[in-house]
Amino acid sequence: MAYITLPVAEELGREFPGIVGPMTFRPETAAPINELVNILLRGESTLTRGERELIATHVSWRNDCFFCQTIHGAVAAAQLGHDEKLVQSVKTDWINADITPKMKALLNIAGRVQQGGKHVTEDDISAARKLGATDLEIHDTVLIAAVFSMCNRYVDGLNTWAPQDMDMYRANAAQIVDRGYSAVTESATAHATR
Amino acid sequence: MAYITLPVAEELGREFPGIVGPMTFRPETAAPINELVNILLRGESTLTRGERELIATHVSWRNDCFFCQTIHGAVAAAQLGHDEKLVQSVKTDWINADITPKMKALLNIAGRVQQGGKHVTEDDISAARKLGATDLEIHDTVLIAAVFSMCNRYVDGLNTWAPQDMDMYRANAAQIVDRGYSAVTESATAHATR
Repeated sequence: MAYITLPVAEELGREFPGIVGPMTFRPETAAPINELVNILLRGESTLTRGERELIATHVSWRNDCFFCQTIHGAVAAAQLGHDEKLVQSVKTDWINADITPKMKALLNIAGRVQQGGKHVTEDDISAARKLGATDLEIHDTVLIAAVFSMCNRYVDGLNTWAPQDMDMYRANAAQIVDRGYSAVTESATAHATR
Repeated sequence: MAYITLPVAEELGREFPGIVGPMTFRPETAAPINELVNILLRGESTLTRGERELIATHVSWRNDCFFCQTIHGAVAAAQLGHDEKLVQSVKTDWINADITPKMKALLNIAGRVQQGGKHVTEDDISAARKLGATDLEIHDTVLIAAVFSMCNRYVDGLNTWAPQDMDMYRANAAQIVDRGYSAVTESATAHATR
Protein backbone atom coordinates (compact mmCIF):
# COMPACT_ATOMS: atom_id res chain seq x y z
CA MET A 1 0.00 0.00 0.00
CA ALA A 2 1.32 3.41 -0.96
CA TYR A 3 1.69 5.87 1.93
CA ILE A 4 -0.86 8.25 0.39
CA THR A 5 -4.19 7.52 -1.31
CA LEU A 6 -3.57 7.44 -5.06
CA PRO A 7 -6.13 7.57 -7.89
CA VAL A 8 -7.42 4.19 -9.11
CA ALA A 9 -6.66 2.92 -12.62
CA GLU A 10 -9.93 1.78 -14.23
CA GLU A 11 -8.35 -1.21 -15.98
CA LEU A 12 -6.45 -2.44 -12.90
CA GLY A 13 -8.98 -1.79 -10.14
CA ARG A 14 -6.13 -0.33 -8.10
CA GLU A 15 -3.54 2.47 -8.49
CA PHE A 16 -1.12 2.58 -11.43
CA PRO A 17 2.24 0.95 -10.62
CA GLY A 18 5.45 2.75 -9.65
CA ILE A 19 5.94 6.41 -10.51
CA VAL A 20 2.73 6.49 -12.57
CA GLY A 21 0.74 6.29 -9.31
CA PRO A 22 1.97 9.59 -7.76
CA MET A 23 2.11 11.12 -11.24
CA THR A 24 -1.64 10.64 -11.65
CA PHE A 25 -2.07 12.06 -8.11
CA ARG A 26 -0.15 15.24 -9.03
CA PRO A 27 -0.16 15.79 -12.83
CA GLU A 28 1.25 19.34 -12.37
CA THR A 29 4.60 18.00 -11.18
CA ALA A 30 4.43 14.94 -13.46
CA ALA A 31 4.52 17.12 -16.59
CA PRO A 32 7.99 18.69 -16.07
CA ILE A 33 9.46 15.40 -14.75
CA ASN A 34 8.30 13.59 -17.89
CA GLU A 35 9.51 16.43 -20.11
CA LEU A 36 12.95 16.26 -18.47
CA VAL A 37 13.13 12.47 -18.87
CA ASN A 38 11.95 12.69 -22.50
CA ILE A 39 14.69 15.20 -23.37
CA LEU A 40 17.43 13.24 -21.61
CA LEU A 41 16.48 9.70 -22.67
CA ARG A 42 14.72 10.27 -26.01
CA GLY A 43 15.88 13.69 -27.30
CA GLU A 44 18.66 14.31 -29.80
CA SER A 45 21.97 12.92 -28.53
CA THR A 46 25.23 11.29 -29.63
CA LEU A 47 24.39 8.51 -27.16
CA THR A 48 21.75 6.05 -28.40
CA ARG A 49 18.39 5.79 -26.63
CA GLY A 50 19.39 2.31 -25.53
CA GLU A 51 22.64 3.59 -23.99
CA ARG A 52 20.85 6.34 -22.09
CA GLU A 53 18.24 3.89 -20.77
CA LEU A 54 21.12 1.69 -19.57
CA ILE A 55 22.45 4.60 -17.48
CA ALA A 56 18.96 5.11 -15.96
CA THR A 57 18.67 1.36 -15.32
CA HIS A 58 22.10 1.09 -13.69
CA VAL A 59 21.45 4.00 -11.31
CA SER A 60 18.01 2.63 -10.40
CA TRP A 61 19.57 -0.78 -9.72
CA ARG A 62 22.19 0.87 -7.48
CA ASN A 63 19.35 2.58 -5.61
CA ASP A 64 17.56 -0.77 -5.30
CA CYS A 65 14.41 0.67 -6.89
CA PHE A 66 12.68 -2.40 -8.32
CA PHE A 67 10.07 -0.55 -10.37
CA CYS A 68 12.50 1.89 -12.03
CA GLN A 69 15.27 -0.62 -12.76
CA THR A 70 12.71 -3.03 -14.25
CA ILE A 71 10.77 -0.60 -16.44
CA HIS A 72 13.87 1.23 -17.70
CA GLY A 73 15.65 -2.11 -18.11
CA ALA A 74 12.72 -3.25 -20.27
CA VAL A 75 12.85 -0.03 -22.32
CA ALA A 76 16.63 -0.42 -22.74
CA ALA A 77 16.22 -4.06 -23.86
CA ALA A 78 13.49 -3.07 -26.34
CA GLN A 79 15.92 -0.56 -27.85
CA LEU A 80 18.90 -2.93 -27.86
CA GLY A 81 17.51 -5.83 -29.90
CA HIS A 82 15.55 -7.23 -26.92
CA ASP A 83 18.81 -8.22 -25.24
CA GLU A 84 17.65 -8.68 -21.65
CA LYS A 85 20.90 -10.46 -20.72
CA LEU A 86 22.91 -7.39 -21.67
CA VAL A 87 20.66 -5.23 -19.48
CA GLN A 88 21.10 -7.63 -16.56
CA SER A 89 24.91 -7.52 -16.92
CA VAL A 90 24.88 -3.70 -16.98
CA LYS A 91 23.05 -3.75 -13.65
CA THR A 92 25.23 -6.21 -11.77
CA ASP A 93 28.54 -6.50 -13.66
CA TRP A 94 28.82 -3.44 -15.89
CA ILE A 95 32.62 -3.57 -15.93
CA ASN A 96 32.46 -6.84 -17.90
CA ALA A 97 29.33 -6.05 -19.91
CA ASP A 98 29.31 -6.09 -23.72
CA ILE A 99 29.24 -2.29 -24.10
CA THR A 100 31.77 0.25 -25.40
CA PRO A 101 34.66 1.42 -23.19
CA LYS A 102 33.18 4.93 -23.34
CA MET A 103 29.87 3.63 -21.99
CA LYS A 104 31.75 1.94 -19.14
CA ALA A 105 33.44 5.25 -18.27
CA LEU A 106 30.04 7.00 -18.33
CA LEU A 107 28.45 4.30 -16.15
CA ASN A 108 31.33 4.77 -13.71
CA ILE A 109 30.50 8.50 -13.50
CA ALA A 110 26.78 7.71 -13.11
CA GLY A 111 27.57 5.35 -10.22
CA ARG A 112 29.58 8.08 -8.47
CA VAL A 113 26.69 10.54 -8.87
CA GLN A 114 24.34 7.95 -7.36
CA GLN A 115 26.57 7.84 -4.26
CA GLY A 116 26.62 11.65 -4.11
CA GLY A 117 27.79 14.52 -6.34
CA LYS A 118 31.11 14.90 -4.53
CA HIS A 119 32.11 11.31 -5.32
CA VAL A 120 32.82 12.26 -8.95
CA THR A 121 36.55 12.93 -9.40
CA GLU A 122 38.71 14.67 -11.99
CA ASP A 123 40.07 11.20 -12.86
CA ASP A 124 36.59 9.80 -13.56
CA ILE A 125 35.97 12.68 -15.96
CA SER A 126 39.31 12.49 -17.75
CA ALA A 127 38.97 8.71 -18.17
CA ALA A 128 35.67 9.31 -20.00
CA ARG A 129 37.14 12.15 -22.03
CA LYS A 130 40.08 9.99 -23.18
CA LEU A 131 37.56 7.47 -24.53
CA GLY A 132 35.85 10.19 -26.56
CA ALA A 133 33.12 11.45 -24.22
CA THR A 134 32.10 15.05 -25.00
CA ASP A 135 31.11 17.78 -22.52
CA LEU A 136 27.46 17.27 -23.46
CA GLU A 137 27.67 13.50 -22.94
CA ILE A 138 29.31 14.02 -19.54
CA HIS A 139 26.70 16.64 -18.62
CA ASP A 140 23.82 14.41 -19.64
CA THR A 141 25.28 11.37 -17.85
CA VAL A 142 25.55 13.36 -14.60
CA LEU A 143 22.04 14.75 -15.03
CA ILE A 144 20.48 11.37 -15.95
CA ALA A 145 22.07 9.84 -12.83
CA ALA A 146 20.81 12.78 -10.74
CA VAL A 147 17.30 12.57 -12.24
CA PHE A 148 17.05 8.86 -11.42
CA SER A 149 18.33 9.51 -7.90
CA MET A 150 15.20 11.70 -7.73
CA CYS A 151 12.75 9.30 -9.42
CA ASN A 152 13.92 6.31 -7.33
CA ARG A 153 13.35 8.31 -4.12
CA TYR A 154 9.94 9.51 -5.33
CA VAL A 155 8.82 5.94 -6.14
CA ASP A 156 10.11 4.24 -2.98
CA GLY A 157 9.67 7.19 -0.58
CA LEU A 158 5.91 6.93 -1.17
CA ASN A 159 6.02 3.10 -1.04
CA THR A 160 4.36 2.68 -4.44
CA TRP A 161 3.24 -0.63 -5.91
CA ALA A 162 5.76 -2.55 -8.08
CA PRO A 163 4.22 -5.44 -10.06
CA GLN A 164 6.26 -8.68 -10.18
CA ASP A 165 4.97 -9.77 -13.61
CA MET A 166 7.75 -9.11 -16.17
CA ASP A 167 5.29 -9.16 -19.09
CA MET A 168 3.59 -6.09 -17.63
CA TYR A 169 6.92 -4.20 -17.78
CA ARG A 170 7.58 -5.43 -21.35
CA ALA A 171 4.14 -4.22 -22.45
CA ASN A 172 4.59 -0.83 -20.75
CA ALA A 173 8.09 -0.52 -22.26
CA ALA A 174 6.66 -1.04 -25.76
CA GLN A 175 4.23 1.84 -25.11
CA ILE A 176 7.05 4.07 -23.87
CA VAL A 177 9.28 3.26 -26.88
CA ASP A 178 6.35 4.08 -29.13
CA ARG A 179 4.87 7.18 -27.49
CA GLY A 180 7.36 8.54 -24.94
CA TYR A 181 7.04 9.22 -21.22
CA SER A 182 4.67 12.21 -21.21
CA ALA A 183 2.06 10.56 -23.45
CA VAL A 184 1.96 7.41 -21.32
CA THR A 185 1.41 9.37 -18.08
CA GLU A 186 -1.15 11.68 -19.67
CA SER A 187 -3.13 8.68 -20.88
CA ALA A 188 -2.93 7.07 -17.41
CA THR A 189 -4.13 10.29 -15.76
CA ALA A 190 -7.10 10.42 -18.15
CA HIS A 191 -8.05 6.85 -17.16
CA ALA A 192 -7.68 7.29 -13.38
CA THR A 193 -10.55 7.89 -10.98
CA ARG A 194 -10.25 9.41 -7.53
CA MET B 1 36.85 24.66 -12.14
CA ALA B 2 33.74 22.85 -13.35
CA TYR B 3 34.36 19.49 -15.05
CA ILE B 4 32.89 20.76 -18.34
CA THR B 5 33.32 24.10 -20.10
CA LEU B 6 30.37 26.30 -19.15
CA PRO B 7 29.20 29.55 -20.79
CA VAL B 8 30.68 32.74 -19.33
CA ALA B 9 28.51 35.31 -17.51
CA GLU B 10 29.22 38.75 -18.97
CA GLU B 11 28.98 40.53 -15.60
CA LEU B 12 31.21 38.04 -13.74
CA GLY B 13 33.86 37.28 -16.36
CA ARG B 14 33.43 33.59 -15.48
CA GLU B 15 30.60 31.02 -15.39
CA PHE B 16 27.43 31.59 -13.36
CA PRO B 17 27.64 29.99 -9.88
CA GLY B 18 26.11 26.68 -8.83
CA ILE B 19 23.27 25.15 -10.82
CA VAL B 20 22.94 28.27 -12.98
CA GLY B 21 26.23 27.29 -14.70
CA PRO B 22 25.06 23.95 -16.18
CA MET B 23 21.58 25.42 -16.69
CA THR B 24 23.00 28.04 -19.08
CA PHE B 25 24.98 25.20 -20.77
CA ARG B 26 21.79 23.15 -21.36
CA PRO B 27 18.70 25.42 -21.30
CA GLU B 28 16.51 22.58 -22.68
CA THR B 29 16.85 20.57 -19.46
CA ALA B 30 16.94 23.71 -17.27
CA ALA B 31 13.38 24.67 -18.28
CA PRO B 32 11.55 21.61 -16.84
CA ILE B 33 13.79 21.55 -13.72
CA ASN B 34 12.93 25.18 -13.00
CA GLU B 35 9.26 24.58 -13.73
CA LEU B 36 9.23 21.67 -11.29
CA VAL B 37 10.96 23.71 -8.58
CA ASN B 38 8.63 26.67 -9.17
CA ILE B 39 5.53 24.47 -8.72
CA LEU B 40 6.87 22.75 -5.61
CA LEU B 41 8.43 25.75 -3.82
CA ARG B 42 6.33 28.67 -5.10
CA GLY B 43 3.02 27.20 -6.37
CA GLU B 44 -0.24 27.01 -4.44
CA SER B 45 0.20 25.01 -1.23
CA THR B 46 -0.96 24.74 2.38
CA LEU B 47 2.74 24.95 3.33
CA THR B 48 4.20 28.45 3.19
CA ARG B 49 6.94 29.27 0.68
CA GLY B 50 9.31 29.72 3.61
CA GLU B 51 8.48 26.24 4.96
CA ARG B 52 9.03 24.60 1.58
CA GLU B 53 12.37 26.40 1.14
CA LEU B 54 13.36 25.08 4.59
CA ILE B 55 12.77 21.50 3.37
CA ALA B 56 14.95 22.19 0.29
CA THR B 57 17.63 23.78 2.50
CA HIS B 58 17.65 20.92 5.01
CA VAL B 59 18.03 18.24 2.31
CA SER B 60 20.79 20.24 0.59
CA TRP B 61 22.59 20.61 3.93
CA ARG B 62 22.30 16.84 4.50
CA ASN B 63 23.82 16.32 1.03
CA ASP B 64 26.61 18.77 1.92
CA CYS B 65 25.85 20.87 -1.18
CA PHE B 66 27.17 24.31 -0.24
CA PHE B 67 25.64 26.20 -3.16
CA CYS B 68 22.12 24.75 -2.79
CA GLN B 69 21.91 24.95 1.01
CA THR B 70 23.15 28.56 0.91
CA ILE B 71 20.93 29.89 -1.88
CA HIS B 72 17.78 28.10 -0.67
CA GLY B 73 18.66 29.05 2.92
CA ALA B 74 18.85 32.68 1.77
CA VAL B 75 15.49 32.38 -0.04
CA ALA B 76 13.94 30.75 3.06
CA ALA B 77 15.30 33.52 5.30
CA ALA B 78 13.99 36.20 2.94
CA GLN B 79 10.52 34.62 3.22
CA LEU B 80 10.69 34.14 7.00
CA GLY B 81 11.33 37.69 8.15
CA HIS B 82 15.06 37.51 7.29
CA ASP B 83 15.58 35.08 10.16
CA GLU B 84 18.95 33.55 9.19
CA LYS B 85 19.36 32.01 12.66
CA LEU B 86 16.17 29.99 12.21
CA VAL B 87 17.46 28.71 8.86
CA GLN B 88 20.76 27.72 10.44
CA SER B 89 18.97 25.80 13.20
CA VAL B 90 16.81 23.95 10.64
CA LYS B 91 20.00 22.78 8.95
CA THR B 92 21.91 21.54 11.97
CA ASP B 93 19.41 21.10 14.82
CA TRP B 94 15.95 20.91 13.24
CA ILE B 95 14.52 18.88 16.12
CA ASN B 96 14.96 21.90 18.43
CA ALA B 97 14.26 24.59 15.82
CA ASP B 98 11.48 27.17 16.29
CA ILE B 99 9.12 25.56 13.74
CA THR B 100 5.77 23.76 14.08
CA PRO B 101 5.64 20.09 15.17
CA LYS B 102 4.12 19.28 11.74
CA MET B 103 7.13 20.86 10.01
CA LYS B 104 9.45 18.76 12.18
CA ALA B 105 7.60 15.61 11.12
CA LEU B 106 7.88 16.65 7.46
CA LEU B 107 11.60 17.44 7.84
CA ASN B 108 12.03 13.98 9.35
CA ILE B 109 10.43 12.44 6.23
CA ALA B 110 12.60 14.64 3.97
CA GLY B 111 15.72 13.45 5.79
CA ARG B 112 14.72 9.80 5.25
CA VAL B 113 14.18 10.46 1.53
CA GLN B 114 17.63 12.06 1.34
CA GLN B 115 19.12 8.81 2.70
CA GLY B 116 17.08 6.78 0.19
CA GLY B 117 13.40 6.19 -0.62
CA LYS B 118 13.24 2.96 1.36
CA HIS B 119 14.27 4.70 4.59
CA VAL B 120 10.79 6.26 4.91
CA THR B 121 8.65 4.16 7.26
CA GLU B 122 4.95 3.81 7.99
CA ASP B 123 5.72 5.36 11.41
CA ASP B 124 7.32 8.45 9.85
CA ILE B 125 4.18 8.97 7.76
CA SER B 126 1.68 8.38 10.57
CA ALA B 127 3.61 10.73 12.88
CA ALA B 128 3.21 13.49 10.27
CA ARG B 129 -0.44 12.63 9.69
CA LYS B 130 -1.21 12.83 13.43
CA LEU B 131 0.17 16.38 13.41
CA GLY B 132 -2.18 17.34 10.59
CA ALA B 133 -0.12 16.66 7.46
CA THR B 134 -2.30 15.97 4.41
CA ASP B 135 -1.61 13.52 1.56
CA LEU B 136 -0.60 16.41 -0.68
CA GLU B 137 1.79 17.83 1.94
CA ILE B 138 3.38 14.39 2.39
CA HIS B 139 3.60 13.92 -1.40
CA ASP B 140 5.20 17.31 -1.91
CA THR B 141 7.65 16.82 0.98
CA VAL B 142 8.84 13.52 -0.52
CA LEU B 143 9.10 15.06 -3.98
CA ILE B 144 10.90 18.22 -2.77
CA ALA B 145 13.44 16.02 -0.95
CA ALA B 146 13.83 13.87 -4.09
CA VAL B 147 14.20 16.92 -6.35
CA PHE B 148 16.95 18.36 -4.17
CA SER B 149 18.69 14.98 -4.06
CA MET B 150 18.80 15.52 -7.85
CA CYS B 151 19.84 19.19 -7.85
CA ASN B 152 22.58 18.64 -5.25
CA ARG B 153 24.06 15.82 -7.37
CA TYR B 154 23.82 17.93 -10.54
CA VAL B 155 25.63 20.86 -8.89
CA ASP B 156 28.41 18.88 -7.17
CA GLY B 157 28.71 16.08 -9.75
CA LEU B 158 29.87 18.69 -12.28
CA ASN B 159 32.05 20.44 -9.68
CA THR B 160 30.42 23.84 -10.21
CA TRP B 161 31.59 27.09 -8.64
CA ALA B 162 30.11 28.08 -5.25
CA PRO B 163 30.84 31.69 -4.23
CA GLN B 164 31.79 32.26 -0.57
CA ASP B 165 30.35 35.79 -0.37
CA MET B 166 27.02 35.64 1.53
CA ASP B 167 25.88 38.97 0.10
CA MET B 168 25.89 37.41 -3.36
CA TYR B 169 23.43 34.74 -2.16
CA ARG B 170 21.25 37.33 -0.44
CA ALA B 171 21.08 39.39 -3.63
CA ASN B 172 20.28 36.32 -5.77
CA ALA B 173 17.65 35.23 -3.23
CA ALA B 174 15.92 38.61 -3.51
CA GLN B 175 15.72 38.11 -7.31
CA ILE B 176 14.30 34.59 -6.86
CA VAL B 177 11.69 35.77 -4.33
CA ASP B 178 10.70 38.50 -6.76
CA ARG B 179 10.77 36.69 -10.11
CA GLY B 180 10.91 32.92 -9.49
CA TYR B 181 13.39 30.28 -10.61
CA SER B 182 12.64 30.11 -14.35
CA ALA B 183 12.93 33.86 -14.91
CA VAL B 184 16.29 34.06 -13.14
CA THR B 185 17.80 31.23 -15.23
CA GLU B 186 16.34 32.58 -18.48
CA SER B 187 17.87 35.97 -17.78
CA ALA B 188 21.25 34.34 -16.97
CA THR B 189 21.14 32.32 -20.21
CA ALA B 190 20.45 35.51 -22.18
CA HIS B 191 23.53 37.15 -20.62
CA ALA B 192 25.91 34.20 -21.10
CA THR B 193 28.47 33.90 -23.89
CA ARG B 194 30.05 30.69 -25.07
